[in-house]
Amino acid sequence: MSDLVVPHLLTAQTGPLLQLEQRILDSLPAIERWFRLQWQEHTPPFYGSVDLRNAGYKLAPVDMNLFPGGFNNLSELMLPAAVQAAQSAIDRICPDARNLLLIPERHTRNQFYLTNVARLVRILRQTGLEVRIGSLADDVTQPTQVVLDDGEELTVEPLVRNGDYLGVGSAAGGFFQPCAILLNNDLSAGIPPILRGLDDQIVIPPLQAGWAVRRKSNHFAAYDGVAEEFAGLIDIDPWFINPYFGRCGEVNFHERSGEECVATNIDFVLDRMRDKYREHGITDTPYVVVKADAGTYGMGVMTVRDASEVRGLNRKQRNKMSVVKEGLEVSEVIIQEGVPTREEVNGAAAEPVVYMVDRTVVGGFYRVHTTRGRDENLNAPGMHFVPLAFSESCNLPDCGAPAGDSAPNRFYAYGVIARLALLAAAIELESTAERVHDVPMSSAAIATAIAG
Amino acid sequence: MSDLVVPHLLTAQTGPLLQLEQRILDSLPAIERWFRLQWQEHTPPFYGSVDLRNAGYKLAPVDMNLFPGGFNNLSELMLPAAVQAAQSAIDRICPDARNLLLIPERHTRNQFYLTNVARLVRILRQTGLEVRIGSLADDVTQPTQVVLDDGEELTVEPLVRNGDYLGVGSAAGGFFQPCAILLNNDLSAGIPPILRGLDDQIVIPPLQAGWAVRRKSNHFAAYDGVAEEFAGLIDIDPWFINPYFGRCGEVNFHERSGEECVATNIDFVLDRMRDKYREHGITDTPYVVVKADAGTYGMGVMTVRDASEVRGLNRKQRNKMSVVKEGLEVSEVIIQEGVPTREEVNGAAAEPVVYMVDRTVVGGFYRVHTTRGRDENLNAPGMHFVPLAFSESCNLPDCGAPAGDSAPNRFYAYGVIARLALLAAAIELESTAERVHDVPMSSAAIATAIAG
Repeated sequence: MSDLVVPHLLTAQTGPLLQLEQRILDSLPAIERWFRLQWQEHTPPFYGSVDLRNAGYKLAPVDMNLFPGGFNNLSELMLPAAVQAAQSAIDRICPDARNLLLIPERHTRNQFYLTNVARLVRILRQTGLEVRIGSLADDVTQPTQVVLDDGEELTVEPLVRNGDYLGVGSAAGGFFQPCAILLNNDLSAGIPPILRGLDDQIVIPPLQAGWAVRRKSNHFAAYDGVAEEFAGLIDIDPWFINPYFGRCGEVNFHERSGEECVATNIDFVLDRMRDKYREHGITDTPYVVVKADAGTYGMGVMTVRDASEVRGLNRKQRNKMSVVKEGLEVSEVIIQEGVPTREEVNGAAAEPVVYMVDRTVVGGFYRVHTTRGRDENLNAPGMHFVPLAFSESCNLPDCGAPAGDSAPNRFYAYGVIARLALLAAAIELESTAERVHDVPMSSAAIATAIAG
Repeated sequence: MSDLVVPHLLTAQTGPLLQLEQRILDSLPAIERWFRLQWQEHTPPFYGSVDLRNAGYKLAPVDMNLFPGGFNNLSELMLPAAVQAAQSAIDRICPDARNLLLIPERHTRNQFYLTNVARLVRILRQTGLEVRIGSLADDVTQPTQVVLDDGEELTVEPLVRNGDYLGVGSAAGGFFQPCAILLNNDLSAGIPPILRGLDDQIVIPPLQAGWAVRRKSNHFAAYDGVAEEFAGLIDIDPWFINPYFGRCGEVNFHERSGEECVATNIDFVLDRMRDKYREHGITDTPYVVVKADAGTYGMGVMTVRDASEVRGLNRKQRNKMSVVKEGLEVSEVIIQEGVPTREEVNGAAAEPVVYMVDRTVVGGFYRVHTTRGRDENLNAPGMHFVPLAFSESCNLPDCGAPAGDSAPNRFYAYGVIARLALLAAAIELESTAERVHDVPMSSAAIATAIAG
């Protein structure tokens, strides 16, 4: 249990959160029943992770990742829950499945990421699936053994398209034809042709979950509805769990076009924030976070306290905001209310990241950054991870203890808010399913297709 | 973690079990997939606990309880898994359920048992259900507060029948009408009229799971088929996981009638055991256990090494064998191959008890008895319980470690065998559903009905 840390929560301005937590705890039966009914209407994504920010007066998701890459950072104690949840998902997706293909990110030299892949493979194998790893990377042209730091070995194989089926292996050595294809690749480089037009085989999460289609603003639009309904259920101001946002669709930081849209949205979000701060007596200085509407890895993120800041970006800042990952150009941005974190681990700013499989919270960790402030993006080089003490707590709040004193209670609330984001993701994916067909192959995808 | 003990396993004759364990571990994907397919055909009981015996050369269930009463003995670490599993069951049984009624055993003064009830209530409430406790006890005529040793309070209410619906509360104070009625009462006293003829409401487990209908021999007949198929799947002698048994339907120990049937079955089982012992080079002295075919609590149980022993029972032994619980007369007995336990906790004989909710292993403990031998019934006054270290292990064998050295591996095997018994229970309940209508009210039930 020594790896489970209950972090110190700054006591400044925890008043309203204590009320929020107490409300969430008091409403547990109603909340759990509400989720049960929601999951009858909406199918949860196979997995996801949510970045939360706990400002004391507010507890809200600021990002939702549908290709979570940090399973290795979760406490081992939560693995049985993950296996159980994965089992539920597999039961629904293809109950008689024998084979599953996992498609990881291309960068198969990154030990941290590979440890995540190994952990995922371990979880999936425990559900009774034969799991093989197929890579989109150009340099994987034959089965390749990768040795992890802990001595574990993974075999990464080139993907093989066999008519309408995707798999690995060869006709000679036996074609491995999976029932389901699990993406742990966020498709920042576009939807590869090899993944299109598959018959029968089910891609999870669906292709529109990839950044070729997905937009953060679609997610938070869906979250608006979820937060509104949930806030009604437990009778709170939805703003306590929901950050304001705006979006701009035609931005080119290099060419300085679209700046005015960004500036206007910054003003709009800051104005609404100031109203709420006044209403609830909050004395912080409002700020917004400008980030790529499609993208991940904490790249292309900027903290802004005044609209004028985006009008005077220097070349370096423009470059930083222009590209996220695998050369994906930023042309759409989301302007999101900044939620400062009031949490610290050993004096360093920290934010909880909650992991879910199917509809279940399966663990989490604190993302900690020793040189960044409470109003900055912590998803940056230099961050480290501390497992959350979710194992005994997240599904099981200690209802006897008063809120605020008790880590389990706070973590139950974290699990609830994270599941709201998961539900929003489910609704988001339903509403964007058709867009997969509209997405042209990106230049990177075309390059891959040609190389392949 | 200090409450989790990995017991010392005697090394004598562990050879064949090591092979069995290794076989089970090697077959994990096939086993888990097989279970997944089985659970598509058969609905698991809501919950159950299985008494296992590990003889070194053999690992087998010797009893399956469909009204488990020791949830308080499980490690707290396993509670999230139990909640998750209960959630799955509720989703299937009545997904929009708001209310659940729990009917416990009548003896509402037993602190140990009440702690079990409290734990069950806690698990169920976490799934989002409002849970109330309705008692069949005659002396519960109004809502009664019961204070547990740890200070927790439970309210036990009299059952109320409202037309075709069962609930608690009154028309004036609000009738609590549950969607599902969870029995934690094994119905040894018969099926109470108040539980019969319910419309819409679902009784879980179904009434035929109670000892008014249930017979151990039906369970082990179903287990024969399950063990046979499973043994085929992993290519082992089914005897390694299945104890022989026989039954006698017309026994009256007081009147010494039916003794010959019991003696003949003892000889039959001992003969078959001797053959297997020879085949596998086992030097133990075979013994059988004679027990009530309907019943629980370790009452009415006798260890026999020779058929002549049942022909010479004294009055005290006859009395002991005649009655199990709540005055239920023993007239049917099962004669079961004795599986000696080779496990010890602190030098005392121990047997694992594995708990399941829905299809999931949610924990377990060792039943330990300091004054009983490895070939005796440990379910007797003087026993105590030591939680099993299932939390990190049972779903997640440590596949790298060699079998035998590793507690997780042994516990994975325990979880597999326990789930085989659970599957047998599912099949047993399907085949005995019709018998509920044939069961006359027992005298105790009639007495209760009159008193009520």
